[in-house]
Parts: sequence; C-alpha cells; structure tokens
Amino acid sequence: MKKIFTKTGSSSESLARTGMVETYHGKFETPIFMPVGTQATVKTMTPEELRECEAQIILSNTYHLYMRPGSDLVEKAGGLHRFMNWKHPILTDSGGFQVFSLGHLNKITEEGVTFQSHIDGSRHFISPEKAVEIQNQLGADIMMVFDECVPYPSDHEYVRNSVDRTTRWAKRCMDAHRNQDKQHLFGIVQGGMYHDLRKRSAEALIDLDFPGYGIGGLSVGEPKKIMYDVLDHLMPIMPPDKPRYLMGVGSPDALIHGVLRGVDMFDCVLPTRIARNGTAMTSEGPVIIKNAKHFESWAPLDSDCQCYCCRNYSRAYLRHLFKSNEILGLRLLSIHNISFLLELMKGIRKAIKNDCLIDYCQAFYRRYYQEELVFNFIP
Amino acid sequence: MKKIFTKTGSSSESLARTGMVETYHGKFETPIFMPVGTQATVKTMTPEELRECEAQIILSNTYHLYMRPGSDLVEKAGGLHRFMNWKHPILTDSGGFQVFSLGHLNKITEEGVTFQSHIDGSRHFISPEKAVEIQNQLGADIMMVFDECVPYPSDHEYVRNSVDRTTRWAKRCMDAHRNQDKQHLFGIVQGGMYHDLRKRSAEALIDLDFPGYGIGGLSVGEPKKIMYDVLDHLMPIMPPDKPRYLMGVGSPDALIHGVLRGVDMFDCVLPTRIARNGTAMTSEGPVIIKNAKHFESWAPLDSDCQCYCCRNYSRAYLRHLFKSNEILGLRLLSIHNISFLLELMKGIRKAIKNDCLIDYCQAFYRRYYQEELVFNFIP
Ligand SMILES: [Zn+2]
Ligand SMILES: [Zn+2]
Repeated sequence: MKKIFTKTGSSSESLARTGMVETYHGKFETPIFMPVGTQATVKTMTPEELRECEAQIILSNTYHLYMRPGSDLVEKAGGLHRFMNWKHPILTDSGGFQVFSLGHLNKITEEGVTFQSHIDGSRHFISPEKAVEIQNQLGADIMMVFDECVPYPSDHEYVRNSVDRTTRWAKRCMDAHRNQDKQHLFGIVQGGMYHDLRKRSAEALIDLDFPGYGIGGLSVGEPKKIMYDVLDHLMPIMPPDKPRYLMGVGSPDALIHGVLRGVDMFDCVLPTRIARNGTAMTSEGPVIIKNAKHFESWAPLDSDCQCYCCRNYSRAYLRHLFKSNEILGLRLLSIHNISFLLELMKGIRKAIKNDCLIDYCQAFYRRYYQEELVFNFIP
Repeated sequence: MKKIFTKTGSSSESLARTGMVETYHGKFETPIFMPVGTQATVKTMTPEELRECEAQIILSNTYHLYMRPGSDLVEKAGGLHRFMNWKHPILTDSGGFQVFSLGHLNKITEEGVTFQSHIDGSRHFISPEKAVEIQNQLGADIMMVFDECVPYPSDHEYVRNSVDRTTRWAKRCMDAHRNQDKQHLFGIVQGGMYHDLRKRSAEALIDLDFPGYGIGGLSVGEPKKIMYDVLDHLMPIMPPDKPRYLMGVGSPDALIHGVLRGVDMFDCVLPTRIARNGTAMTSEGPVIIKNAKHFESWAPLDSDCQCYCCRNYSRAYLRHLFKSNEILGLRLLSIHNISFLLELMKGIRKAIKNDCLIDYCQAFYRRYYQEELVFNFIP
C-alpha cells in the first residue's frame, strides 16, 4: 500500500509525533484538527475563512451528502472539492456512524444495513461496496471503510461479532475501491471498550495494510478515563508509519490526551456547534457570550487570539449580536472557535518539535481548565 | 448650513444627476443605494464583505439600537462605527417610522410619542429632542429628524395637521442637535399622497435650511404609480444643491424611477431580506434558488455578476445550501443581492455621466422585467 505518512518529529515524554500526510489535493501536517462540513459546508463559514483560520483539511459526511443533494449530483459537479469550492484535502466518513445513530435502523445483515432516511423516511440499503462507491463519487482525498459503531455499553459477545463483521466489511471496502491513486481508504479499529477486541480489530486490519487507520467507537458516551485507557492499550500496537485518526473527538482535553497517546488526526462538530450556541473556547476557558458580565466588555473574546473576530470585535458587540439573533454572531464565534482549536494543534506541533509537549499542554490545561494535566507515560 | 453635496453630472433626459456627499467618515457618490444594518449589522455580512460589494454608506436604525443594546452602550463603545467595525459613512433614521409601525403606539402629543417596546413591552417616550440625543450618541454621519410617517391612506385634514407638527418637530430637532460639525441632520418631507401638503412640507423645511432632505411616507402600501406621481410634483421644488433621500425604497424599478426624478439616496431591507428567503435579483430577473430547475445547474446565479458568490458557486450548490438550511446560503445570496443593487446604481451613475440614462434603464428594464420602461419627462 502506498505510503502517505512521513513522521517529522517525536516527543520523548509521550507517544506524540509530528508528521505530514500527502494527498491528491495537497499535504497536511499532523497532529491536526479537521473542521466538520457535514453538508458540504463548514457551518456559517466560507472556504476562504477556513483558510484564514489555517484549516488544512476538512471532513464531510457521506451519509448526509448521499441523502442530500445525492452523490450523483456531487459527482456531476466534478466532486466535492469543486461542488463546495474547497481546494484542499477532504476526508469523508463512511456513513456508518450516521446510519447507526441518525437513520431509523431496520436491519443489519452480513450483506449490509437497511435503514430509513432521517429526512424523509425513505428506505435505503448500504453495503460496504455501496459506501465505497458513494465515496468514490464524492472524491474526498481520504475515505473511511463502512463499519459498525457499537453503542456504549455493549456486551463482549456482541462487540466481538461486530468487530469480526467490520473486519470482513473492511476487506470488501478495500476490494470495491475504484480510485486508489487519488483517494486513500482508511480502516477503522472498533472493539468497544474491550482491550482484547480492540487488539483483535487492529491486528486484523493491520494485516489488510490500509494506508491509515481510524479509531472509531470512542467518545460515544463513555467516561473520558475509559477512552484514554483504550488508547493507552491500543496505540502502541498501531503501525508507526501510518496516520491514526481518532474519530469524533474535539474537546481540548481529549485532543491533548489523544496527541500524547500518538493520535495524528481528529474531527468534531464541537467548535462550530457550541459557537452557534454562543460559547467560545478561549485560552482562559469557555466564555458564554450572552452572560450579562460581557454587556460592557470592550475586550476581544481572547486577547491571545489573532483571528478575524478577536482582531475586530468586542465582547460587548458579540453579546449584542447574540442577544439580537444576528447571524454575524454565529459566524464570528465559529471563526474564533475553529481558529482556537487549530492554534492549539499548531502549538502542539511546535511543542513536539521542541520536545516540550508536556509543559505546553500543562500550561494550556492550567489556564483553560484551572486544573493539572494528569498523564503518566510508561515508555 | 454647511454644504455637503456637490453635483458632478446631470442627465438631459430626466432630473437625474450624479453627485458627491461629504461626511466626517468620508465621501460617497450619488445616486447611491444604502444597505440596511438594522441592529448594527447588515444581516449575515461583515463590513469587509460590504466593501467588497462596493457599499459606500450603510443605514442603521435608531429605534432598534435604542431598544437593544441601548444608545448609552454604543456611545461608550465610541459610537456606532467603532461598535460595529464599519469605518465609512453611516446614516441613522430617527426611529419615527419604527415607533409608528413596530412599537405598540400609545399616544402622540405635541411633545412627542409614548409607545411600548416591540421586544419587552416596556414603556418609552420619544420626543424630537430625545431622538436627536440618541442619534448624537450613536454618532452616525447623517441623522434624520423625528417625524410622523402617516399610514396610507389618510385623510387630508389628518395629514395636514401631521405635516405641520412634523415641521415643528424638525425645528426642535435642529435646535437640539449637539454635534453639527461631525453629524449632518436631514429634514424629512411628509404630506402623504397630497401634492399640496408635500409642497407645504417641503417649503417649510427648505426654509429651515437642512443640509439634505429625506422624502418619507412613500412606499407605505400605495401603488407605485402614485409614488412616482408624488415625486413628479415634489422633486422640481427641492433645492438642487442638497441631497434627496427617498426613504425605504429598494426595488430595481423604484430605484430607476426615483433616480429619473432626481433622487440621490435610497435604502431598503429588500435585497437582504429576499436573499434570506432564497430569492436572488439577477440581470434576467428574480431567481428562486430552491426551484427544482436549478438542481443540476452549474451556472452562477448571474453570469454578468462579478460578486464573490457568482465567481465561486453554482446554482446547484446554492440550491443545496438552501434546501439544507445552511447559513452559507443566506450569506451568499445576501452578498449577491447587495452587489447587484450597488452595481445597478454604479451603472446608473456612469450612464448619467455619459448622458445615456434612459437607454441604460430601458435595457435593464427589458432584461429584468421583460417589459418597457415608461417615463415621460417634461423638462
Ligand atoms: Zn479569536
Ligand atoms: Zn453575484
């Protein structure tokens, strides 16, 4: 399998590393956070604004695009990049997660999944082959295999059967993939919270030699301690020369703990979703912009931030926009939150290169959470 | 009274003229359309986007800002320009129109108006002096006198009494104005649809020597023919060396008919409001972007338009954004519609300079409305 990942640095205090991933639409640095553009748009933002926030790769959701406007239309547009005017790398998930969480699930068989649309109730069948065909039509630089994301908690026997089926599906995805020179297909490690099943899943997928690996089925409601514990056991057996993508994770603490355990890629709707609810992530912790105390505050959201929002607008103005239900408020907080997480990841990459990652993360933790970062590294 | 208007060109076929208005925050060319930023933001847009659309002056609403966030706060911010980050000219209305249309009106007396807030029902009293004080706090470059905008239709006697009171209020506004070197106060001609009362209002206000004049109480539900008829009678008596502002008018036909009768300034929420409803104004007429026929259209909204939306996005993508309730769709259509009207006004200014205004407007009319422009000029 073609190598797409080059390691460029590592941390002596953790499993963290920096790297570069090469795709048909350009390179991106890791560790990286990928803003989510579910419906072929990162909510409220233009591609130019994403670039000003230094976004290098974005994620879009296969399930949503398949339902609306349809992957046939996106293919006719010349693919997702041209459709949405984003010229840089894109990753699409497989739709598996949404089929199991959003759709009205009807039946899982060895062949695939039958479910009803969350939009109009129409019936659909998605097999591993179909998920790959849709992603080939969308044309993202990185595609994901069709997997079952089991709920938390699930019993050991159910998860073992699911893991084995997900492995068989992964093989079928690989065989169905028609555009291997431009699109890279990642496997997805499942296994719930069971260390033996995570290992079983990882080993089987490593045998299939994917160019990169997602870690799915985490951040699905389990305590964060359990997620970190799963990563502690799993990450050391993941191939060092391939990117590792922790799916659906985007809170600052989880980004930091993921990086320390060797994760390279993250995505989450969190920064844009909480922005639209009026919550900004700042270097001193979350700010709820509608709070009365910001009524007469002429400070920017975050005086350490150089984003468009922080360069130009006061908290008093942002609060006014939110109190008045003005769309510009949603835009400005989205820009800030995306900037904030991308700036955090940039700082993390720099700290890895300077081998001072723990200090960097500790300083971040103290300001953001007003508590100590707890991380025990057993090399 | 300080002269702020310089005539730079005129049309031999109509009363149209080009000019330049000077304000504390810079000059703007006329005839001009002013995008409306009711709550200290032109809905969905940043100041930079407005500039890219070549907006030269915007309007904001005194009534709304007084209610939320309050003119005291805006004053503390250093005025509206700094509060909203718009460095160019701003015009504020007096709040009169909204008090009479939005607020729950309690009582009009010679002293002023008592009404209840449309937001929280709180009771307020606004006098001409108060309206000016609020506008002095907001700090817009052009302010408007506090007037009564009578409904259509109203009987002659009611309108005559109202016009006379509005004239007395205009004088009180002028006397109360505390920032004459930086802010210019315009009078507002009222008089309903009665030619004699329009003349009575205009003559009394001209005596007061305002630096410019609004024409209020039009576009309030009367047939357009009646509005044009009022302008036909009124405009020839307006002073040629002062700007004339037709308040609340922004449909392409009314802009054209206004310009032909000598109007210099216009404002309206129309372009941004219909944008958010999914209607674009294009050189070939209105386009309803959700229509099924745009499903697979790879054309821009308007192939004659050079705006950010038309340079980068297809109708198919815009339709997808609207079908998916994505904010980016509202943004892109707002940018386009504002660009479209400002481009129309720019074309009008150029046509006046080249003295081919009727041809220009006729060509626009035929493409946009598929009908002939009817305009009889009696010099
Ligand atoms: Zn910021
Ligand atoms: Zn356009």
